[in-house]
Amino acid sequence: MRRISCFLSSSSTLERATNLKDSFWLSSQRGISTSGPDLVNDGSSSVRRYANFTVYKGKAALAVSPCLPTFREVDAGVSRVHKKGGVLLTFWPAVGQMKYDWQKKQAIALSPTEVGSLIALGPADSCDFLHDPAMKSSLEGQVKKSLSISPMKDGTGYVLHFTVVNNVQKTNERFVVPVTKAEFTAVRTVLSYVLPHIMGWTQAARPQPRSTVTDKPKEKTEVRPDPSVEWGR
Amino acid sequence: MRRISCFLSSSSTLERATNLKDSFWLSSQRGISTSGPDLVNDGSSSVRRYANFTVYKGKAALAVSPCLPTFREVDAGVSRVHKKGGVLLTFWPAVGQMKYDWQKKQAIALSPTEVGSLIALGPADSCDFLHDPAMKSSLEGQVKKSLSISPMKDGTGYVLHFTVVNNVQKTNERFVVPVTKAEFTAVRTVLSYVLPHIMGWTQAARPQPRSTVTDKPKEKTEVRPDPSVEWGR
Amino acid sequence: MRRISCFLSSSSTLERATNLKDSFWLSSQRGISTSGPDLVNDGSSSVRRYANFTVYKGKAALAVSPCLPTFREVDAGVSRVHKKGGVLLTFWPAVGQMKYDWQKKQAIALSPTEVGSLIALGPADSCDFLHDPAMKSSLEGQVKKSLSISPMKDGTGYVLHFTVVNNVQKTNERFVVPVTKAEFTAVRTVLSYVLPHIMGWTQAARPQPRSTVTDKPKEKTEVRPDPSVEWGR
Amino acid sequence: MRRISCFLSSSSTLERATNLKDSFWLSSQRGISTSGPDLVNDGSSSVRRYANFTVYKGKAALAVSPCLPTFREVDAGVSRVHKKGGVLLTFWPAVGQMKYDWQKKQAIALSPTEVGSLIALGPADSCDFLHDPAMKSSLEGQVKKSLSISPMKDGTGYVLHFTVVNNVQKTNERFVVPVTKAEFTAVRTVLSYVLPHIMGWTQAARPQPRSTVTDKPKEKTEVRPDPSVEWGR
Repeated sequence: MRRISCFLSSSSTLERATNLKDSFWLSSQRGISTSGPDLVNDGSSSVRRYANFTVYKGKAALAVSPCLPTFREVDAGVSRVHKKGGVLLTFWPAVGQMKYDWQKKQAIALSPTEVGSLIALGPADSCDFLHDPAMKSSLEGQVKKSLSISPMKDGTGYVLHFTVVNNVQKTNERFVVPVTKAEFTAVRTVLSYVLPHIMGWTQAARPQPRSTVTDKPKEKTEVRPDPSVEWGR
Repeated sequence: MRRISCFLSSSSTLERATNLKDSFWLSSQRGISTSGPDLVNDGSSSVRRYANFTVYKGKAALAVSPCLPTFREVDAGVSRVHKKGGVLLTFWPAVGQMKYDWQKKQAIALSPTEVGSLIALGPADSCDFLHDPAMKSSLEGQVKKSLSISPMKDGTGYVLHFTVVNNVQKTNERFVVPVTKAEFTAVRTVLSYVLPHIMGWTQAARPQPRSTVTDKPKEKTEVRPDPSVEWGR
Repeated sequence: MRRISCFLSSSSTLERATNLKDSFWLSSQRGISTSGPDLVNDGSSSVRRYANFTVYKGKAALAVSPCLPTFREVDAGVSRVHKKGGVLLTFWPAVGQMKYDWQKKQAIALSPTEVGSLIALGPADSCDFLHDPAMKSSLEGQVKKSLSISPMKDGTGYVLHFTVVNNVQKTNERFVVPVTKAEFTAVRTVLSYVLPHIMGWTQAARPQPRSTVTDKPKEKTEVRPDPSVEWGR
Repeated sequence: MRRISCFLSSSSTLERATNLKDSFWLSSQRGISTSGPDLVNDGSSSVRRYANFTVYKGKAALAVSPCLPTFREVDAGVSRVHKKGGVLLTFWPAVGQMKYDWQKKQAIALSPTEVGSLIALGPADSCDFLHDPAMKSSLEGQVKKSLSISPMKDGTGYVLHFTVVNNVQKTNERFVVPVTKAEFTAVRTVLSYVLPHIMGWTQAARPQPRSTVTDKPKEKTEVRPDPSVEWGR
């Protein structure tokens, strides 16, 4: 079964940043910046930790990394998800064995729902993601990203085809990365782990401090979902 | 296979609140109020964080959000689950493309067991939940909520039918929300994550402080399960 | 397929306590005693939180609760799992609709491996656990506990049969608890969550403080696994 | 289906340590050293906690334990994964019933991808891991480790065959450990739990302190993946 997702979500702002400002690490830093456990011992210092999952193949390298959502205070002591998180897939073309062109990277940010379709991907399933990172900007329609994931004929894994067509820069870049069943299972496992994080549920599900258990909510904290940030078919 | 759950649990108190006091955010606030990590740095402030998973469809919007259990101290330094948590499904009718009537929302709170039936739902399975949010109150039997989840014929997802019949207000509201396989997988993943939270296991499973390892329990802390809050068939 | 596990592990000490000292809550307290998040704010107080998953059926009630492992310091600043954790299943006989005899409870503690067999249980699978809670004591062989889990013929769930034969007290108690597919899925989900906890991996997998990263281990901290506490077939 | 993984990764440095310095506990200590929850109560002390999953069989014993990654500060307040974590499998030969030769242990460290292949292992699947722990050292090719996992004919579990051929010490050691379906499910469950830990995602996915939300990343913190530490086929 082939599912097609035409996803034009807030996460595409990550890609826009990635494209226009080549700030992959800005994105992923904002995504996975963190205070290490040391913070508990020493509130005065904060260490940001980065991690990803990278596979190095013959034609390209692929790095998968989480982007946490950001929260914005909407009222005194009350914050909600401001920018949804996602999972960033970054590709680099190979220029030799174990050599890659780190300048020519291209990235696509998957939304929580797209992460769900990866988690649900069966051995014989395929899926496609079509993104317009410049959506709702003056460049809308000028950049098209297409990620296609198809099963290998011998059932030993999947092949990722990622294409970025940029009509502004007149570029058309293609990346092909085969992933083994073992690599995909490792990715699927961490995606299942990280999905509640990028959706903000891990922070929302924390126990409330005893002192606020009986607090009454303020009406003005009623926050309505915003359809403009996501449109499902 | 079609399973029918006639669940009349404590979680329905959430729905009663939702109905009679239109306090969806009160419920979810009580559910997911939280002290952010900042609390570790600054014990004097507490930030509540909210998160949900929302899909916007042609006829209605659906938001899924967790409601944590509340603990009550039953003895000095000993607390147990006082009110069980759940997962709240809130529906809004569409009044135009990407426009929804935020005042006409209706919600149903799923118990841990009902969450289990969603997690167990196979591609060809269906399930129904019938709730009386006013149970054990003077309004018992006056409000009927029915949530039905059925697979799409083409196997690409599920369709949720939610009906609220209120004999007091003489209203009969219907909501229809199709969810893709990817969206349902995202929901199933976060439901699996949040289930131990709404059951209180994440707080109960925390390591005990060294100082209390050798403490003897007090007999009066023996707490018997209360059948009145839950009745399984 | 019917699997038989004759498990005579350290977790049976929990059962012995449960039998001889009727200290279910002692066990589960030791198991799930915890310092609430408040502890972060106020190191002077410690709140223990309890949680379980209980189903109330016509003939008996069943409560599932986690028992965390205990750690013992084997060297300065070095501790290892001293007593393995488990999952406690407690049964109460019904004495009327929604009425149960809380004094006549019987419990069986499942080891991590037995929890694994529950997680792996397929729709058509069965499993049996045979315990001698008094093993290696003067009462060895006097008390036999047998838990049998079989699928319902209509595939809508499982039936648990729990029998405790006590030759000392000349008693033979039987409990029968049917669980729906939804209830079993909820249990399976929290068992998957809690398994790393009862095995001690959640505490072992925590990041080490920066200050000790370069510490060299002391030879005398080499700890050999102890076959006497567990014997697999 | 039989998959063969010829994995020569950074994790093999763990094995080299294990071989040449017999420092299994050094490895696993570095891996799972941790500050217990006590640290929250008493910042002045740090307790390291160890845990593993061990099965004792007729011919050998097998212990599975996690090895966390180490982070190195690459810029002020910015650290990234320095050494990838893994899962260590340690074998001891039996010298009698419930007696094992603790001196003759041999270990193999599985990479995140290899852990993924274990998680993905179906009832009828097999997999093989071939390691050269001395890779890129003067001893390269002198030591060969081979771990083979095959399903039992009756479908009740798997059999692990582990062979270490050491041309320097002129030794050839073989270990055979059958694991039941229940034991493998327990292992698979904790491997799924620990995979995000050994990949560093659990530390990377932590919320950032409020004070650093608006911090701009420093360009020099751009960190390129290093193909030399991992080479996928």
